[in-house]
Amino acid sequence: MSYQVAVLSGDGIGPEVMAEARKVLAEVEARFKLDINYTEYDVGGIAIDNHGCPLPDATLKGCEAADAILFGSVGGPKWEHLPPNDQPERGALLPLRGHFELFCNLRPAKLHDGLEHMSPLRSDISARGFDVLCVRELTGGIYFGKPKGRQGEGDDEEAFDTMRYSRREITRIARIAFEAARGRKNKVTSVDKANVLACSVLWRQVVEEVAKDFPDVTLEHIYIDNATMQLLRRPDEFDVMLCSNLFGDILSDEIAMLTGSMGLLSSASMNSTGFGLFEPAGGSAPDIAGKGIANPVAQILSAALMLRHSLKQEEAASAIERAVSQALSAGYLTGELLTADQRSQAKSTKQMGDFIANAI
Amino acid sequence: MSYQVAVLSGDGIGPEVMAEARKVLAEVEARFKLDINYTEYDVGGIAIDNHGCPLPDATLKGCEAADAILFGSVGGPKWEHLPPNDQPERGALLPLRGHFELFCNLRPAKLHDGLEHMSPLRSDISARGFDVLCVRELTGGIYFGKPKGRQGEGDDEEAFDTMRYSRREITRIARIAFEAARGRKNKVTSVDKANVLACSVLWRQVVEEVAKDFPDVTLEHIYIDNATMQLLRRPDEFDVMLCSNLFGDILSDEIAMLTGSMGLLSSASMNSTGFGLFEPAGGSAPDIAGKGIANPVAQILSAALMLRHSLKQEEAASAIERAVSQALSAGYLTGELLTADQRSQAKSTKQMGDFIANAI
Ligand SMILES: CC(C)[C@H](C(=O)O)[C@@H](O)C(=O)O
Ligand SMILES: CC(C)[C@H](C(=O)O)[C@@H](O)C(=O)O
Repeated sequence: MSYQVAVLSGDGIGPEVMAEARKVLAEVEARFKLDINYTEYDVGGIAIDNHGCPLPDATLKGCEAADAILFGSVGGPKWEHLPPNDQPERGALLPLRGHFELFCNLRPAKLHDGLEHMSPLRSDISARGFDVLCVRELTGGIYFGKPKGRQGEGDDEEAFDTMRYSRREITRIARIAFEAARGRKNKVTSVDKANVLACSVLWRQVVEEVAKDFPDVTLEHIYIDNATMQLLRRPDEFDVMLCSNLFGDILSDEIAMLTGSMGLLSSASMNSTGFGLFEPAGGSAPDIAGKGIANPVAQILSAALMLRHSLKQEEAASAIERAVSQALSAGYLTGELLTADQRSQAKSTKQMGDFIANAI
Repeated sequence: MSYQVAVLSGDGIGPEVMAEARKVLAEVEARFKLDINYTEYDVGGIAIDNHGCPLPDATLKGCEAADAILFGSVGGPKWEHLPPNDQPERGALLPLRGHFELFCNLRPAKLHDGLEHMSPLRSDISARGFDVLCVRELTGGIYFGKPKGRQGEGDDEEAFDTMRYSRREITRIARIAFEAARGRKNKVTSVDKANVLACSVLWRQVVEEVAKDFPDVTLEHIYIDNATMQLLRRPDEFDVMLCSNLFGDILSDEIAMLTGSMGLLSSASMNSTGFGLFEPAGGSAPDIAGKGIANPVAQILSAALMLRHSLKQEEAASAIERAVSQALSAGYLTGELLTADQRSQAKSTKQMGDFIANAI
């Protein structure tokens, strides 16, 4: 079996961490006898510099011809003066999500054993650990709803966005959340604002209906404002959190920050054919780009998610995840995960990649 | 000078904590020779029980005739089966905000000296303390934007909400944030999602324009997802946070939870005439209602906000705030603010009210 992967390293630390992911992928290909062909394409700021737009046609065509997209990260101060629509994040990520209908975003976040002190939570709360999977709807809601725009003049000038969800859109993302819960702690917490939003009232209703097909999974509903609070007090009581596009954007970032180790978190965005875009959850971190100190783990784990979800190579995916766990439990860490007095033991981007590749 | 205050105690702990606020108000009236007339009205669940709807006409008329509304809290399990529109929170708070155009919501939240251990944040973060004022727009955005509803059938059935902001609405709330910053640390952080929402693009633009009139105040912009994260790492770096209705709902609750002492936080919702609704930031807490253990401080502080903002009695307001500070620094606390081994020293709702009234 041979696979095509479109590699979009992007800006900032993207290319450095991608190099380590490729190194690890080369090892699993050899070990599991996979034939993966990679083609690199510009995306984001570098694409603006080289081709005048953040998502050039050639990149989109290349992605269309691939089985999956391995994505780095985009953006940086150099392109922040551009109008919102032309900026790297907005101009590349949103069109990719829309074009390939990547409606399902999975963002797993757990507090790793031994890294509890990195969490911004009080020690007695972080000591209990947590392991949350945020299932975010990614192609609907207020991100893509029409009409969206501006009208009027002077003081009456107004802007408007439309939040919109259909029964079909809610059903398909809800099913994914319930299925994911089955492989975990059998609990789904659906996040909404049903006391204010018409979309949330429908959301809650459809989620209740889907739940009937999963009698073994416990369902609870929580308002977004309350979710933001409860995650701070009792993160360990959540399992799968099912969110609309906007609420998932907010909550998945809150949860990521609660781990205190964003450099370990990756994200999968998929459509119904299994095609997907896999990327680190953190950003392009322009401040540390080029220094060889960025943590490549999130990028490496996004390669594992790609193997699992798009290439259906579960064994290869698990092998990567095991190798990463081995590095972390051995205390093999980049600088941002170490306290000031341990900093001298910090591993470089390349050292992390080498260790994990060797552990395959 | 004589004032009319509409007292809407509502459900759960509302009536108990309101009794203590009234006790404290009686003391400041005597000391500062104020003539305040109170009239009680049903609101929320109790109004549903007594009159069939959460905001009866008589209550609304009473509020119209008053200079301010002193609000307790509404809601509870008894009314949760009702359709969203008829529930106490949705059916009373939103119409009151809309009817009186209470566009400006102030939610101050600070970590009190000596109560750092209550914060869910890691001790080195909470040790730095924080003091944030969330200025939330309260009558616009996706809460009130039209059209809002449902259409279609079967799998195509869809719901929609409209987020809508005019230049006028953004200007007036922004001015309040900048003015508030002047009495504080001269910094405004405006929260938006300008990389996705048309409303946020206009929001950012108008806030920039208003900022020109306040050259002494520093302005920064932050995306809502990033704000949710940064508050966890460096809450001490924020001063005034300026938010739209939905983002303010989420962020003000996150900040409240970060203090770990929701029972101390109050909220002011005002219109341009100075008329306002003043309430504790926490909910009706039906689980502890009637036990005499609820913390009355938030309700007492909401009376102080009422004196300051609607009745323009700054001295009386400060007197209440000083009396509260005195109680807290004396370690005079209700049970939820004490650790298990200190719990035997917990003060009752009534004891707290008495102490603060005596300290006036
Ligand atoms: C860059 C931005 C448009 C994007 C989003 O809001 O979805 C980002 O925050 C994310 O979560 O991937
Ligand atoms: C009850 C609800 C409608 C309300 C809101 O979302 O504004 C509440 O959460 C609040 O913040 O006062």
